[in-house]
Amino acid sequence: MTKANKLRETENLQEHLQRIIHLLRQQELAEERAHVAHPDLGESVEKKPDLAELQNLLDRLHPADVAHILEALPLEERLIVWDMVKAERDGEILLEVSDAVRETLIATMNSGEMLAAAEQLDADEIADIASDLPSEVIHDVFQSLPMEEREKLRAAMSYPEDSVGALMDFDVVTIREDVTMEVVLRYLRRLDELPDHTDLLFVVDRGEHLKGVLPLNRLLVSDPNATVDSVMTRQTVAFHPNEKAHEAAQAFERYDLVSAAVVNGEDKLMGRVTVNAVMDFIREESSSEALNLGGLRQEEDLFAPIWKSLKNRWTWLAINLVTAFIASRVIGIFEDSIEKLVALAALMPIIAGIGGNSGNQTITMIVRALALGQINAANARKLFAKEMGVSVVNGLVWGSIVGLFAFLIYRSASLGLVMTLAMLLNLLLAAVLGVLIPLTLHKLGRDPATGSSVLITAVTDSGGFFIFLGLATLFLL
Amino acid sequence: MTKANKLRETENLQEHLQRIIHLLRQQELAEERAHVAHPDLGESVEKKPDLAELQNLLDRLHPADVAHILEALPLEERLIVWDMVKAERDGEILLEVSDAVRETLIATMNSGEMLAAAEQLDADEIADIASDLPSEVIHDVFQSLPMEEREKLRAAMSYPEDSVGALMDFDVVTIREDVTMEVVLRYLRRLDELPDHTDLLFVVDRGEHLKGVLPLNRLLVSDPNATVDSVMTRQTVAFHPNEKAHEAAQAFERYDLVSAAVVNGEDKLMGRVTVNAVMDFIREESSSEALNLGGLRQEEDLFAPIWKSLKNRWTWLAINLVTAFIASRVIGIFEDSIEKLVALAALMPIIAGIGGNSGNQTITMIVRALALGQINAANARKLFAKEMGVSVVNGLVWGSIVGLFAFLIYRSASLGLVMTLAMLLNLLLAAVLGVLIPLTLHKLGRDPATGSSVLITAVTDSGGFFIFLGLATLFLL
Repeated sequence: MTKANKLRETENLQEHLQRIIHLLRQQELAEERAHVAHPDLGESVEKKPDLAELQNLLDRLHPADVAHILEALPLEERLIVWDMVKAERDGEILLEVSDAVRETLIATMNSGEMLAAAEQLDADEIADIASDLPSEVIHDVFQSLPMEEREKLRAAMSYPEDSVGALMDFDVVTIREDVTMEVVLRYLRRLDELPDHTDLLFVVDRGEHLKGVLPLNRLLVSDPNATVDSVMTRQTVAFHPNEKAHEAAQAFERYDLVSAAVVNGEDKLMGRVTVNAVMDFIREESSSEALNLGGLRQEEDLFAPIWKSLKNRWTWLAINLVTAFIASRVIGIFEDSIEKLVALAALMPIIAGIGGNSGNQTITMIVRALALGQINAANARKLFAKEMGVSVVNGLVWGSIVGLFAFLIYRSASLGLVMTLAMLLNLLLAAVLGVLIPLTLHKLGRDPATGSSVLITAVTDSGGFFIFLGLATLFLL
Repeated sequence: MTKANKLRETENLQEHLQRIIHLLRQQELAEERAHVAHPDLGESVEKKPDLAELQNLLDRLHPADVAHILEALPLEERLIVWDMVKAERDGEILLEVSDAVRETLIATMNSGEMLAAAEQLDADEIADIASDLPSEVIHDVFQSLPMEEREKLRAAMSYPEDSVGALMDFDVVTIREDVTMEVVLRYLRRLDELPDHTDLLFVVDRGEHLKGVLPLNRLLVSDPNATVDSVMTRQTVAFHPNEKAHEAAQAFERYDLVSAAVVNGEDKLMGRVTVNAVMDFIREESSSEALNLGGLRQEEDLFAPIWKSLKNRWTWLAINLVTAFIASRVIGIFEDSIEKLVALAALMPIIAGIGGNSGNQTITMIVRALALGQINAANARKLFAKEMGVSVVNGLVWGSIVGLFAFLIYRSASLGLVMTLAMLLNLLLAAVLGVLIPLTLHKLGRDPATGSSVLITAVTDSGGFFIFLGLATLFLL
């Protein structure tokens, strides 16, 4: 970002982080030195200058940047920084950090501090962090809110995490359709400020039913005497709070929205969704997908204590272990064959490995197309045919290469041919199940992005071993 | 989305797709039937009604929705629909489809059609599809543009795909700082419309240098007699066109921006970046990461001809094959040991598999933290220590389980102990290289998300086989 001093310099966030770590280390050293020199003095006075610079730096940072710094600090140092952040920003910072890090921060707060932090937030924001707060605190928060806000918080907390309701906020500016632009402008001027991401005003009737929207862009270029009615857009995107957040995100991307209405079954305006909530959702969605593919259950605090990391990793390791045991027993069936022709042991991982790779390629394609809603009964067959075609060619090409490899090393043409045939069959198996597994999970209402990859690898491993060792037993021994 | 008829119903996109495929199939059947009945009649007339409904449906759809439908159709049917889409929307639709599908569409257009499509687009949009157009067409497009637009197109095409310049558009509304709100409002009213995503006006001096921004939110609530100067925000985020798009995206997420200025080295306003460009970028970035992890080189047209799919998949299969050959040769070294104790062949994939899984967990963590800029020299050591700790515990726990498994099946305590030790060592290897591989790639200026996973799996496979078979040879034979 630009270096001009009038513009915010976010480029320096990495440098800020380095500087903060440096200051914290200095501080620790100073304390240690003080302890050695005057073991009975305890808290030394010479730490002041460094801490002052640190405090200064933190005060200047945007809450989102403070959150970023907290994420990157080891636990002990993170808590020192957290203590130094001005109490009035606690709420906003808690909102910005990841779930895992939020837990570590909340663990150091008493209920009074949590209550104070929650009071800085809007109802929809409190709902976002509510699951990390003790229930007594939530109760107190409720008590502290005015009736209308209480209703909003209750509403916001009632929707599942992946629904539009969870993305919704309540910062809507509403107008009536029979007034003029002039009146609207005067009305707006009486407000202290418009909510962030207000790119349009919601036009409602007396019963709060949504009639249309008036984009600010239109408001600003319209004749002051024109009525809302004559300028507003009636064709507008609106969501129900129970709709999938995923679908709202697609609509935002497709129609380039900044904000959109949320209405109930009778078209009564309940709130709105803004692009920043959608962007956070997209980021979380794709990140949790990547974590799952990488074998992690959920986002992990970089500096989580070891036992917490273990909990996050054991699920997938355990599943993997079960599939590995199965594969091992498949090999066990053919121990006699391997004893007679030990080359089989060296060659079998090739068949399993390439099969797994190819199966995962198919899975990736299909999972993606399913997420985009591009697959249906009518085109699934075509897709299936294509994947089979790809795997036949791949099987012949790569099968020949591995067959040649086997022949060159073990000087057996029949071993080479068995390799080629096994590769072809395992790639076909990978293609068939690479299509069927995600489609089946999707049909069962489960997310095909989770688990498909493990399943296909299990199939191509055990299946690959079985096909290769079985063919070898039939034809070579 | 709401069912009220005044609101746009995007919920029905899936249904639209089904309906379109159905209409196309009807059409094909009708044609076949006509051929059978009157083989010499050729093009029949009875197809009209279905085609009329199809045309009607397509005309009502948003260009982004048409793009979505095109993506989901097999090639032949896709081209029928493409032919039916009104020519004046060609440009917008081309902009919305994926690169792979765009290629198939452009292949059917002559240069006149391509030129006409490009003429519907802004300079920054033409730049987005320029790489898919033949160079003569680009030349003609240049010639057809007014001088100022030509400059913009040249500028937009000159930035690499992952830079802020590639996300930039030129739809900026600029004002001077010495005028009043009243004057600004009058000025805006003279415009036909404000560009989409205009949430702020850029305040510049005579030399087009950026002085600050005036958010519409502030404009609307301010006293009409106040000057821009007294209301505008001077502290604003601005990017350089050569900055990484990735960093701009992080700034948009962190500071919840809708649009932001792009300035050159002298703070002269060049254009702006909007949240919709950023959202598209985030989506593409995370999708290409997922494709890479799944072993695909790039996005693939669902219905690509087989040879195109093969090209997309061979890179990773070839790399995988090389690593599989290496692992195979590692096993080859120990063929004598396996011949003597054939249980080794059945057990070795367990060690390799769990090692790969655990290594990928570490990689996923580190790659993520690197992307977020959370790792530096100061905290890398802590992170390393944590991963080592996790893998020691995992090694002992899972090592004991697989040791027990081996003991129960093969009734050999020493074999069980070798399994346990091999698992521990392979998990340590996975942790060390799971940290080192992405950090090294990052230091070399390469994207650690690409290739890290293949590398770690190669290491834990070959390494796992070597460790297990080596230990077995030392202690069991």
